[in-house]
Amino acid sequence: MIPEILREHNAQFFVMYDSSRNANFYYSTGFQIPDPAFYMIGDDGTDLLVVSEMEKRRAERESKVKEIASLNDIGFYEIYKELKDPHIALAQTLYELIRTHGGKKILVPREFPSFLSFYFKERMDVEVIPNPFSRLRMIKRGNEIEKIRQTSKAILEAMDFTLKIIRKVSSCEELRNKIEVFLFKKGFLAENTIVSSGTLSADPHYIGMGEIEDHLIVDIFPRSRENLYFSDFTRTVLLNDNAEIAEMLEAVIEAKNKAISIIHDGVLASEIHNLVCDVLEGKGYGTLRKKSVEGFLHSTGHGIGLEVHEEPRIYMNDEVIRKGMVFTVEPGLYYRKIGGVRVEDTVVVKKDGCEVLTPYRDFIKITGV
Amino acid sequence: MIPEILREHNAQFFVMYDSSRNANFYYSTGFQIPDPAFYMIGDDGTDLLVVSEMEKRRAERESKVKEIASLNDIGFYEIYKELKDPHIALAQTLYELIRTHGGKKILVPREFPSFLSFYFKERMDVEVIPNPFSRLRMIKRGNEIEKIRQTSKAILEAMDFTLKIIRKVSSCEELRNKIEVFLFKKGFLAENTIVSSGTLSADPHYIGMGEIEDHLIVDIFPRSRENLYFSDFTRTVLLNDNAEIAEMLEAVIEAKNKAISIIHDGVLASEIHNLVCDVLEGKGYGTLRKKSVEGFLHSTGHGIGLEVHEEPRIYMNDEVIRKGMVFTVEPGLYYRKIGGVRVEDTVVVKKDGCEVLTPYRDFIKITGV
Repeated sequence: MIPEILREHNAQFFVMYDSSRNANFYYSTGFQIPDPAFYMIGDDGTDLLVVSEMEKRRAERESKVKEIASLNDIGFYEIYKELKDPHIALAQTLYELIRTHGGKKILVPREFPSFLSFYFKERMDVEVIPNPFSRLRMIKRGNEIEKIRQTSKAILEAMDFTLKIIRKVSSCEELRNKIEVFLFKKGFLAENTIVSSGTLSADPHYIGMGEIEDHLIVDIFPRSRENLYFSDFTRTVLLNDNAEIAEMLEAVIEAKNKAISIIHDGVLASEIHNLVCDVLEGKGYGTLRKKSVEGFLHSTGHGIGLEVHEEPRIYMNDEVIRKGMVFTVEPGLYYRKIGGVRVEDTVVVKKDGCEVLTPYRDFIKITGV
Repeated sequence: MIPEILREHNAQFFVMYDSSRNANFYYSTGFQIPDPAFYMIGDDGTDLLVVSEMEKRRAERESKVKEIASLNDIGFYEIYKELKDPHIALAQTLYELIRTHGGKKILVPREFPSFLSFYFKERMDVEVIPNPFSRLRMIKRGNEIEKIRQTSKAILEAMDFTLKIIRKVSSCEELRNKIEVFLFKKGFLAENTIVSSGTLSADPHYIGMGEIEDHLIVDIFPRSRENLYFSDFTRTVLLNDNAEIAEMLEAVIEAKNKAISIIHDGVLASEIHNLVCDVLEGKGYGTLRKKSVEGFLHSTGHGIGLEVHEEPRIYMNDEVIRKGMVFTVEPGLYYRKIGGVRVEDTVVVKKDGCEVLTPYRDFIKITGV
């Protein structure tokens, strides 16, 4: 795929400079590295990762890149001694590396750091493109789907656990901590797990603090500590009778399930999103599509994999949904005077439909103590 | 500080586009946000954070930025409808925002994404500078030092725990997992904790797998799950007689302690690093300074705080060490046929010396079963 893109843009190399915190970098190199490294893919078969001396042998062993060089190997220290500034020295060393390989025009991803791209651009042709690996990562391979399935399974166990202890905890933060410790022991890292109640739950990303009131949003999105794949799941739990909240919850459940029912290879992201908006607007709720500032305030969903938010976005866009894509379907309703509700599943797209990786009952009401 | 830099560069705004995964973004805005947002600081007192609609109210409540706007507020959706591409629409919207505020020249940090900087540069003056917050963050305030102290304390408890169970585990990965679960329950997140043994421990960042042999490097660098501050600590444990390893360990302990003894307000980073190299070279070991490919292969240390690796770097550079800086001192020796050893403390610089935040015995030998 990269060679085609290079030819299309008349360029010789696609380059990245990042740590493995960038999922595209990790996906393409197969290498976990805490500090930024330089990766260069050429139309001539070049597949070269440049790391510090101390990472060289580990990169040779653990990464899937063909050729590994250290900064030492490509002459960084001589240039550093001369130029003094390590960042300019790095830019100059990498520039010379690209030129030596015959590079006249390079492609860089959107997130490429400006200190390098500006330096390069003064000396050669540089074009910014969407990172091709973001697109490649959209369609999951079988082993990736299995990894997301494992994480999904752990989430559902955590949800069972949540319901078991929900009446025994005294605050949202206590419940969040118990959920996160439960998952960590099983090998999954959940951070900023949303356990929010009361009117402040009207902010979709508010993680929740204090007393558990009439209802509780539980949004769990851990990744495997072993293989790094995420999954994402939300349920809203009713703990007391509250007609307004219950009605909102019925609405988002209907919107979610209708949306899931139309997902298949070939549907447009916008069809899914518009269906969710149709259902919610039909019941009199506001949506961002209608420029409401309360109601359904976010997109219908997002791809999930090595990142918790990745492509495709399920929104007003014309993305064609394809077999093998994994994403969330998560309608929510948010009103400042009432609070928020949301239900969310992670699905994998099949030819004629989709499979819900997080099957769990939708309407959860817990009564009594 | 930002106004001075702006005046110096004849610019009106310093801008960032990042999520709170960028420590500078989190430090300057005080806002935890998973997706990128736009932050703009002006010489005219502008202090403006642009987030999506769904994050607006949370940003107003949780961030320390003066003014919050949503993409909606600044006209993104109209431009998106017209231009179709969300990235170009974002660039155009932000460009118009800067122009409306009177911006003719802006400063961006090194890590600023190229898709925005290239778009801006075609329309106004853009200069890349080192992120000023990286420098500001070097000198820790009292409450930051307290946070690093809390994390350090948890690390030492984890080290006690490690020594207690070291003979009872069957592999490096089992020990790593037990250490990480121990810390997680206490409120600290450790990832990629290094528990490495045998010859592969000659790779400084190899996290360790399989059997525990004659010696074990234990490198623990968690952050508080509550306040996000890291600390960093390493000890090498001898489990069997091994004269070569023991000798290497004595050498790095001597190098570490001599280095710590000269740290005070005003010393140069290079003086600390060169002293470590002098000690190790004096005992016949190689160093990167001498272009050896085995021996002491990395820098003497790195700043620590909201990032596990941050400024200052303790290396061959002329950084003047100042009161309030917190960094590691971590000489190591790495030989492929023998393995690696390392000891590491985190210190905070005082006027006339430094305080070790991770006081623990250096030479650890465990004999018997």
